[in-house]
Amino acid sequence: MATEVRQQLLEKGMVMLLRQGYHDLGIAALLEATDTPKGSFYHHFKSKEDFGLQAIDLYMLAVHQGLEHCLGDASLPPLQRVRRFFELSEEKYRTEGYLGCLLGGLGQELSGVSDVFRRKVEECFAAIESRIATCLEEAIKRGELPKNTSPERMAKLLVNCWEGAALRSRLARDPGPLRDMLDFYFGALSS
Amino acid sequence: MATEVRQQLLEKGMVMLLRQGYHDLGIAALLEATDTPKGSFYHHFKSKEDFGLQAIDLYMLAVHQGLEHCLGDASLPPLQRVRRFFELSEEKYRTEGYLGCLLGGLGQELSGVSDVFRRKVEECFAAIESRIATCLEEAIKRGELPKNTSPERMAKLLVNCWEGAALRSRLARDPGPLRDMLDFYFGALSS
Repeated sequence: MATEVRQQLLEKGMVMLLRQGYHDLGIAALLEATDTPKGSFYHHFKSKEDFGLQAIDLYMLAVHQGLEHCLGDASLPPLQRVRRFFELSEEKYRTEGYLGCLLGGLGQELSGVSDVFRRKVEECFAAIESRIATCLEEAIKRGELPKNTSPERMAKLLVNCWEGAALRSRLARDPGPLRDMLDFYFGALSS
Repeated sequence: MATEVRQQLLEKGMVMLLRQGYHDLGIAALLEATDTPKGSFYHHFKSKEDFGLQAIDLYMLAVHQGLEHCLGDASLPPLQRVRRFFELSEEKYRTEGYLGCLLGGLGQELSGVSDVFRRKVEECFAAIESRIATCLEEAIKRGELPKNTSPERMAKLLVNCWEGAALRSRLARDPGPLRDMLDFYFGALSS
């Protein structure tokens, strides 16, 4: 039962963090939104920071499942697998009303005031990039990319450009910036 | 005197907003940091929102001066002028400890909860892009870019990718992501 409540707080909290960010999210509002008795938050989490970090972990669980699903799909050439992951992310953003990426949101809001969140978000990006770089290496081996391509550099570039496009899709509530960015990146990569 | 105090609040507030974002910035802390008497904030601003919007205006004043300075420099080819603007932005970020861009920070934090800030930040990006697009048009006329290049699309892409790189430089406190992004973009543009 306690585990269920904790999970519910994290799931709802993750959605609320995506929309309104960290400092604007009140614990009372989260408890109210989940019909959890007042005062029970600290039964489940050490602190708001602890809650935020665990919400990021929950977010990353879905991200890594998406990476697994797309990058592990041997029926597609490696570059298409990578692109597919970002297309699925766009699809996920769509269902949420184009609110962008939680890592970008919390990274922007908190990295100036919290080294804990700054390092956490940086680690999450690095983990995503590492998996993408492995797939880009396979693309190089298969001749989809020039031999002198740096998979790490290109994976990082992709993630960074995507985050900028995700911010813009959040501002415009529109998928256009995401699609334009992917077209540009993969076009440049293949040329 | 009132104008001076207002200006001081905006200048200091802009720096504080860049570091800690909007919701974490307390008006009391801002007044203390500027040695302004308690209770006088609402003498200068209608609301915290009004203050935030005016801080963005102050930020944009510097951005437009930078655009003027770089894009108006007829001694350089158009593409180099555009790149120079972003290199100067990187230089500005450096002096601030690589905290990134205020538009990206406030855009991420506030666009899920405030249509006023969402539209404001989107307008600011659009204004920057419009000036860059004009310079890219000149690059097309001079043969620096293919005739079928869309200046508006490429300007938007540049700004968006830059914002993602700026987030990453904020996380890593490092200029690497900014430089890599510019190399990739201008490399792709010229190839």
